[in-house]
Amino acid sequence: MTSKSIRPVETKYFTFAEPPNGFKLESGRIFGPVTLAYETYGELNADRSNAILVMHAFSGNAHAAGLHGGDKSPGWWDFMIGPGRGLDTEKYFVICINVIGGCKGSTGPSSINPKTGKPYGIDFPLVTIGDMIRTQKVLIDHLGIKRLYGVIGGSMGGMLALQWIASFPDSVECVIPIATTLKHSAQQIAFNEVGRQAIMADPSWSGGNYYGGPFPDKGLAVARMLGHITFMSNESMEKKFSRRLKDDNSGFNFSADFEVEGYLQYRGMSFTKRFDANTYLYITKAMDYFDLSDGKWIPKDGLPDVRFLVIAFKSDWLYPSAQSQEMVKQLKMRQIDATYCESDSTYGHDTFLIESEAGKQSHLIKHFLAKRK
Amino acid sequence: MTSKSIRPVETKYFTFAEPPNGFKLESGRIFGPVTLAYETYGELNADRSNAILVMHAFSGNAHAAGLHGGDKSPGWWDFMIGPGRGLDTEKYFVICINVIGGCKGSTGPSSINPKTGKPYGIDFPLVTIGDMIRTQKVLIDHLGIKRLYGVIGGSMGGMLALQWIASFPDSVECVIPIATTLKHSAQQIAFNEVGRQAIMADPSWSGGNYYGGPFPDKGLAVARMLGHITFMSNESMEKKFSRRLKDDNSGFNFSADFEVEGYLQYRGMSFTKRFDANTYLYITKAMDYFDLSDGKWIPKDGLPDVRFLVIAFKSDWLYPSAQSQEMVKQLKMRQIDATYCESDSTYGHDTFLIESEAGKQSHLIKHFLAKRK
Repeated sequence: MTSKSIRPVETKYFTFAEPPNGFKLESGRIFGPVTLAYETYGELNADRSNAILVMHAFSGNAHAAGLHGGDKSPGWWDFMIGPGRGLDTEKYFVICINVIGGCKGSTGPSSINPKTGKPYGIDFPLVTIGDMIRTQKVLIDHLGIKRLYGVIGGSMGGMLALQWIASFPDSVECVIPIATTLKHSAQQIAFNEVGRQAIMADPSWSGGNYYGGPFPDKGLAVARMLGHITFMSNESMEKKFSRRLKDDNSGFNFSADFEVEGYLQYRGMSFTKRFDANTYLYITKAMDYFDLSDGKWIPKDGLPDVRFLVIAFKSDWLYPSAQSQEMVKQLKMRQIDATYCESDSTYGHDTFLIESEAGKQSHLIKHFLAKRK
Repeated sequence: MTSKSIRPVETKYFTFAEPPNGFKLESGRIFGPVTLAYETYGELNADRSNAILVMHAFSGNAHAAGLHGGDKSPGWWDFMIGPGRGLDTEKYFVICINVIGGCKGSTGPSSINPKTGKPYGIDFPLVTIGDMIRTQKVLIDHLGIKRLYGVIGGSMGGMLALQWIASFPDSVECVIPIATTLKHSAQQIAFNEVGRQAIMADPSWSGGNYYGGPFPDKGLAVARMLGHITFMSNESMEKKFSRRLKDDNSGFNFSADFEVEGYLQYRGMSFTKRFDANTYLYITKAMDYFDLSDGKWIPKDGLPDVRFLVIAFKSDWLYPSAQSQEMVKQLKMRQIDATYCESDSTYGHDTFLIESEAGKQSHLIKHFLAKRK
């Protein structure tokens, strides 16, 4: 990564409420208005054929790259997006949109319900990965882009990328799902459920009506602590912490004695500063219900104009590479152009967010995108 | 398993308070009196050479086998203990003792502090796996047994078995650690810490002073739900639940939609009926601090009169078989007689408690014990 991060970038907002008085969700419920927060990097070319939509993971947001004015740390995938980087902003127009249900500028349970003047809380409708994609499509249409050159994302972002091609098979050429799956296993649902129960067990959750405070920070922190364990591999956790005791370890007691405990507690509590507990509930449910495993979304005559690059990490035990292999198998059986790449990285599920692993991934993605049909 | 479960069995209690006014814990604190709940099965032979001490896992208790009067379901390892079973009560005198710190009859944080007339709560002293073993040794001495024929246990029970030989290398012949480790990895500490944080995040925990009620059931249930995920393999969870929805699934909402969610919630809540939250904190800490990995506990001239049978399960990702292999490597490097057996069972960590897997394990253990030196 030789180039500098893009500066300044800004988050934009797009609001819509169609058909007539809202957007029709998969559940049938008409909901609106919907605001989507998004960012773009690079320039859309004259024939609007160079757009790549980046999908964020569960706790991500629209600020994928570059620096907001005054910021010192860049967006969450900055090492991947910029001049000369994996998603080269000198060639591509890169877009990232916060999902509906989120808490980073897009309409979600913490947004104000215009009918009541108060946050939706759990009156917010249940949304699906399909709803997330169909709302993003409204924005992509609004930007005048008929067909994306690519969709790419890791973890839930990979589900969103898969859902894009499933919902709009004519609207993309390159699909790059990373460290993801066609459906959650029982174990993946189970981990999400423990997180949800930790949040709902916190009396401050108050049935979702906590926006006047206090917030269910303790429950949300426990949920995030668990998440962090699953994002790392056994090996990377061992390398980072082993059994080292904290410097200020006060001896065997119920505070954090080991470094790994202090780290998880810190990550848990800092997450509560930037994330909404109800969004945690809504988005994990959407992921659990996501299921493209029956392959019925693949058109009868296949997808002759589409290419897949499926990336998995050998050390990822949350989304084991066998799930990506199953995906590739399904695609290959339908004669779809799919390349599979399994990385030896030892960082576990989070590898796609680890800057020191950027080189290999950027190289792979850059070359895959370069061989335009 | 052809024989009938032993009936009736009863839990006995042994109380002691030595030296002078209590038992000296590893921390240096003098604590007492200490009561240990225990059960025995079979008969001690004339030269007191046929005793096998069974160590229970984290949430286990002294009731390892047989039926208490009126009970319909037997002890937690009944399929292993009885006439003709793996631990054959026609040959061996089998003992199981609830650990100090526990909540099943032995002195623990929920016991009454004789000085205050109230439960100890977190005034209970911090205990180690070493303390658990040294208190059990007092009881074994009291029973007039100088040398055990065997020590055996799974998970934390395996740590206890290892600690027995480490603390009293002349006091046992056969050591059978199952699905265990010489020390917790960062990931194992991390899982325990999430459980502890879930408990302590529950306002009903009240700094450990909850015995007047309400109890921190919600936090304890979340901790147990997480535990259950780690006890099962990805494969066994998939076989048992896959993505099946609950029969009474009321549709996409925040109740339990999937069977796996309902199962975990049920297991979590039923655990709160039989387990003490403070014991959860104390015992997980003891496990996290356990560390025999430096091998210094092995006497200079080895252990010529001791035989190890180390059992691990390929599908156990909580205590991966590599940890058992490391254990065997250490033993072999000191010329200690150690047999390693890795089972193909797909049930994960809990395999040693699964009755359908009893046959293989019983066979293995029975034959290992039979070849007396």
